[in-house]
Amino acid sequence: MDLALGIDLGGTELRVGLLTRAGRLVGRLQVPTDTLGGPQAVVDQMVRLIEALRREAGDPAVAGIGVASPGPLDPEHGVVIDAPTLGGWHDVPLVALLEARTGLPARLENDANAAALGEWRAGAGIGLRHMIYVTVSTGIGGGVIADGRLLHGHRGMATEIGHMTQRQDGPLCSCGVHGCFEALASGTALDAAARQAVSSGSVTLMRELAGEGLVTARHVTAAARAGDALALALLHEEARLLGRGFASLLHLYSPELIVVGGGVSEALDLMQPELGRAMREAAMPAYRDVPVVRAVLGHDAGLVGAASLMWQENPD
Amino acid sequence: MDLALGIDLGGTELRVGLLTRAGRLVGRLQVPTDTLGGPQAVVDQMVRLIEALRREAGDPAVAGIGVASPGPLDPEHGVVIDAPTLGGWHDVPLVALLEARTGLPARLENDANAAALGEWRAGAGIGLRHMIYVTVSTGIGGGVIADGRLLHGHRGMATEIGHMTQRQDGPLCSCGVHGCFEALASGTALDAAARQAVSSGSVTLMRELAGEGLVTARHVTAAARAGDALALALLHEEARLLGRGFASLLHLYSPELIVVGGGVSEALDLMQPELGRAMREAAMPAYRDVPVVRAVLGHDAGLVGAASLMWQENPD
Repeated sequence: MDLALGIDLGGTELRVGLLTRAGRLVGRLQVPTDTLGGPQAVVDQMVRLIEALRREAGDPAVAGIGVASPGPLDPEHGVVIDAPTLGGWHDVPLVALLEARTGLPARLENDANAAALGEWRAGAGIGLRHMIYVTVSTGIGGGVIADGRLLHGHRGMATEIGHMTQRQDGPLCSCGVHGCFEALASGTALDAAARQAVSSGSVTLMRELAGEGLVTARHVTAAARAGDALALALLHEEARLLGRGFASLLHLYSPELIVVGGGVSEALDLMQPELGRAMREAAMPAYRDVPVVRAVLGHDAGLVGAASLMWQENPD
Repeated sequence: MDLALGIDLGGTELRVGLLTRAGRLVGRLQVPTDTLGGPQAVVDQMVRLIEALRREAGDPAVAGIGVASPGPLDPEHGVVIDAPTLGGWHDVPLVALLEARTGLPARLENDANAAALGEWRAGAGIGLRHMIYVTVSTGIGGGVIADGRLLHGHRGMATEIGHMTQRQDGPLCSCGVHGCFEALASGTALDAAARQAVSSGSVTLMRELAGEGLVTARHVTAAARAGDALALALLHEEARLLGRGFASLLHLYSPELIVVGGGVSEALDLMQPELGRAMREAAMPAYRDVPVVRAVLGHDAGLVGAASLMWQENPD
């Protein structure tokens, strides 16, 4: 039984994959998530995709179904506690629903943790015992592998790394508190910094790239690659903010590696020198040599990590 | 074999205890640490105290020797990497030295982690699966129990919680970086705030309590207990700083309980209302109800935790 199903339940897309124990995708299907239909409709979608995938692969035996879902959720009891991006799911016993419909064992993990598991089992962190996965996009999220296992904490709510305070008098975060790491260094924060920089009237390629639309982090990266000075300065400041936050993460979790995913990670190569400098300046000597690399699984990290839940030796 | 030896190796005092599996001290001896004599002299002291304790108890069988030591250290290989407070120990294979001299198995853990283990096994956190121990004294240190085990990280260096950044433009920390939690909220920071407050010339009991000496956190607490307004204001600000940092810790580790030790914890009862308010304001809703309590083992936490290393089921 060397195959498992992985489900990545997103607010926009629902992806289901059939994966080997090594994390290789044997098959994959995806549809727009029926968020309007509620949990029952989405479970129906999952079951249909699972059946189609298994049929296509010749009905192989599978170890079970791992699901990555937005949180907060309770991995132990398999319940989605609250998921705003899914149209307000509350206390949905997703594992029980899936098990009843498919007859297969199922497990649940939050999406950032699942992506961390994916990168650890089959991506940038293979073979390590201590690793942090950080996703920098709309917000900042992450998952921590420590002492050879995923760190859960009470109700699976540990490693909300976007909400560690970095600057108590800093900008207001979406969570309502000032100065969270996410409020300073997320893609959304970079979007805002870029818009402010462009509105100042400086000559910059970012304005042309954005055309009629709003300037975003994506335009910053594209302009920086073309040598645009203002865009490069924005990325350097982003790198400093990330590096400073990563230094705190080194002290808090002591990883061997930091793996960065999410949209902003597309500019990681451009940010590396400044990011490394900021980390070294803010980290104590014993922590200074931890490398930062880009995630390698891209959008599949959650799917791969979800399926790998079925092979975990130390479930909590 | 329901007894183990615990050693708390401090820069000032060396304590050795004989403890039951439940963490009860059957006997204890302590001497000033022979830091001038170097590792060999200190190991000699340990062996003499161990022999005296065992003799006194009628030479019972013991499971082994757990040692709490200042770090950084490598718990896996039992090596003290660097310990400034011990007169500059470097790469001392303490476990191997003790095992060779006593014929007993030995294990090593850093002092903050050992204190966390002690409070978890036999103190304020008995029976929990997720707990943070924070010691607030000269610096801020701590240990984290997550998912039913002590969080180590690479080389046992996780949970240096005093060195998470809280205010990037804040006061300079002893580690060389601005705005660490420790630089803002340690006993040393409270000492400094008290001295500044007293020097402003306000009427305060703290001046009388300190007499010819410098005002310290201890005088703040004593004056606050007597109703001194300035001392109470200082403790309220300390509580706000601690509460803000604790909120970050909730998001990072998701504990069921925060246990506070160290000198500043003597004022925890006076700080509770303001500390709770600051935590609730800075924590996301799902994390808001985590209680903060005072450590119960006092100076024995390290000793109790060290001995408990011999009963651990999941050594890393």
